[in-house]
Amino acid sequence: MGAASLVTGAPRTREREGEAGEEGLAAPAGLLPDADALGVYGRAADFEAIVEHLEAAIGGLDPVARPTQMRFPPVIARATIERCGYLHSFPHLLGTVFAFEGDDAAHAGLVAAAEAGQDWSGFQRMTDVALVPAACYAVYPRLAGRLPIDGRLIDVASWCFRQEPSEVPERMRSFRMREFVRLGPPEVVQAWRAGWLERAEAFVARLGLAPGLAPANDPFFGTGARFLARSQREQELKFELSVEVRPGVRVAAVSCNYHLEHFGAAFGITTPDGETAHTACVGFGLERLAVALIHAHGATLDAWPAHVRSNLST
Amino acid sequence: MGAASLVTGAPRTREREGEAGEEGLAAPAGLLPDADALGVYGRAADFEAIVEHLEAAIGGLDPVARPTQMRFPPVIARATIERCGYLHSFPHLLGTVFAFEGDDAAHAGLVAAAEAGQDWSGFQRMTDVALVPAACYAVYPRLAGRLPIDGRLIDVASWCFRQEPSEVPERMRSFRMREFVRLGPPEVVQAWRAGWLERAEAFVARLGLAPGLAPANDPFFGTGARFLARSQREQELKFELSVEVRPGVRVAAVSCNYHLEHFGAAFGITTPDGETAHTACVGFGLERLAVALIHAHGATLDAWPAHVRSNLST
Repeated sequence: MGAASLVTGAPRTREREGEAGEEGLAAPAGLLPDADALGVYGRAADFEAIVEHLEAAIGGLDPVARPTQMRFPPVIARATIERCGYLHSFPHLLGTVFAFEGDDAAHAGLVAAAEAGQDWSGFQRMTDVALVPAACYAVYPRLAGRLPIDGRLIDVASWCFRQEPSEVPERMRSFRMREFVRLGPPEVVQAWRAGWLERAEAFVARLGLAPGLAPANDPFFGTGARFLARSQREQELKFELSVEVRPGVRVAAVSCNYHLEHFGAAFGITTPDGETAHTACVGFGLERLAVALIHAHGATLDAWPAHVRSNLST
Repeated sequence: MGAASLVTGAPRTREREGEAGEEGLAAPAGLLPDADALGVYGRAADFEAIVEHLEAAIGGLDPVARPTQMRFPPVIARATIERCGYLHSFPHLLGTVFAFEGDDAAHAGLVAAAEAGQDWSGFQRMTDVALVPAACYAVYPRLAGRLPIDGRLIDVASWCFRQEPSEVPERMRSFRMREFVRLGPPEVVQAWRAGWLERAEAFVARLGLAPGLAPANDPFFGTGARFLARSQREQELKFELSVEVRPGVRVAAVSCNYHLEHFGAAFGITTPDGETAHTACVGFGLERLAVALIHAHGATLDAWPAHVRSNLST
């Protein structure tokens, strides 16, 4: 299985319906749009409170598990992105970090160009970091080597970035993803994912969000995209839970993925008997779930139905 | 006052002592370094617990105030960075976000270059967003216009980025900053900052970190840097609280800044009588405080002195 069949923790299959003709949509309650950057929002206190409750509830969904918690910054080594095949499959979504390296003369040129409203990108050089595309990517290089006999279970979260500027508030460029990642022998990883498919669907249903569970595919780039998407669906490597975020508009808010040995091979992660480890993940798009909850139950958390609040421990 | 005298919420004055000859330092307990990117760390559960307690304690330091809470993603409109003079003063610290825009042929070129280990930066174009350099920058454009008679008080936080790759764990490239920002007439803003200078110093002292309070300057770029730094110090626009993070090494962990009318003028923020608003901020470097706490009291929060824990409400 090559880089092209990479599947990620990211529930970002593009639903075309509902995308057209909706320029200038008002942001949902609690979101503070950036007037100069599409898909970049601040968060007011009420919105953050919903996200915090979601985080706590998601953390308690599997009370038997004892995951290792890892939290990551919004940037990641570019070498990791290159190693895991992201450039091959999703070049259009990646954000790379550039910076200035120069002397006073170059600085004067940069400032003059910027002040004249001209392109000053020529004064920037690519650095060794990129924006995190999916929370789980930062996990794999740190687990290179031999896993324990039971494999590993990681609880991970970070801010993620996707370069898809959009007017619609459910398609943010910068958003938070909470994931659980399982690494180990194939049968262990497969059983774990099967359990999470049920658990995640039941949770989203208890939130009153009427989830739709369906096989899905990642938004691969270019001429090979159709083939890769079909292959991913045929192997049932990706499932998504969709929720309604505006009248008649549903988007994926949870994604449950089986990567086969893709990441194990890319980062040298093996089982105790030396086989390449398999991996799977379940990823929760926290902003999308929050937007769906506000759409379903209103902007005031205290006024939500009691059964929804009890599932968020409010 | 021009763009060059910009002062930010960022406690990042460079202390040269302790920087040399310390390559290959081990990361403090709870930090997970990225092997391929200097100054990029994951956070284990114990480290995050300290940061969460710090956040809660900082939020309660001024119990009378009723700030408006805003939280921001790690990216910000590039237009905001251009408007506030950051390119003039700190071009070397800024991270800009680039992305791919191209067809299948360009994609093939990108992938071929990356797989050959060659420079593929030519396939990236500058986008309209940059990494957030200081949490408060995202506030000002959203408060353009006339302030209420009492001005505004904002409680803000975000991940910040500074392009200064370093082996030393207290100089992260990606870190969290919690800030309070006061906007209003000069005398209101000045009195507010004076209050926070005392409050922040007392808080850090109660944490057992023996803070050193001193006038400071931002790390301006280039030939004008010395003049700008001296001017900033003479006007006492910036104070920093330093803490010890390793034996004999102190760094700034809290910064208290008076911006005069810099941001008010740049973003058209006025008082009710039409005068340009003044602004000030106090910024807490959460990772630096956590590293200092671990250095002072050990890696296990539960084993810290009772008086320290009581100040973190643990």
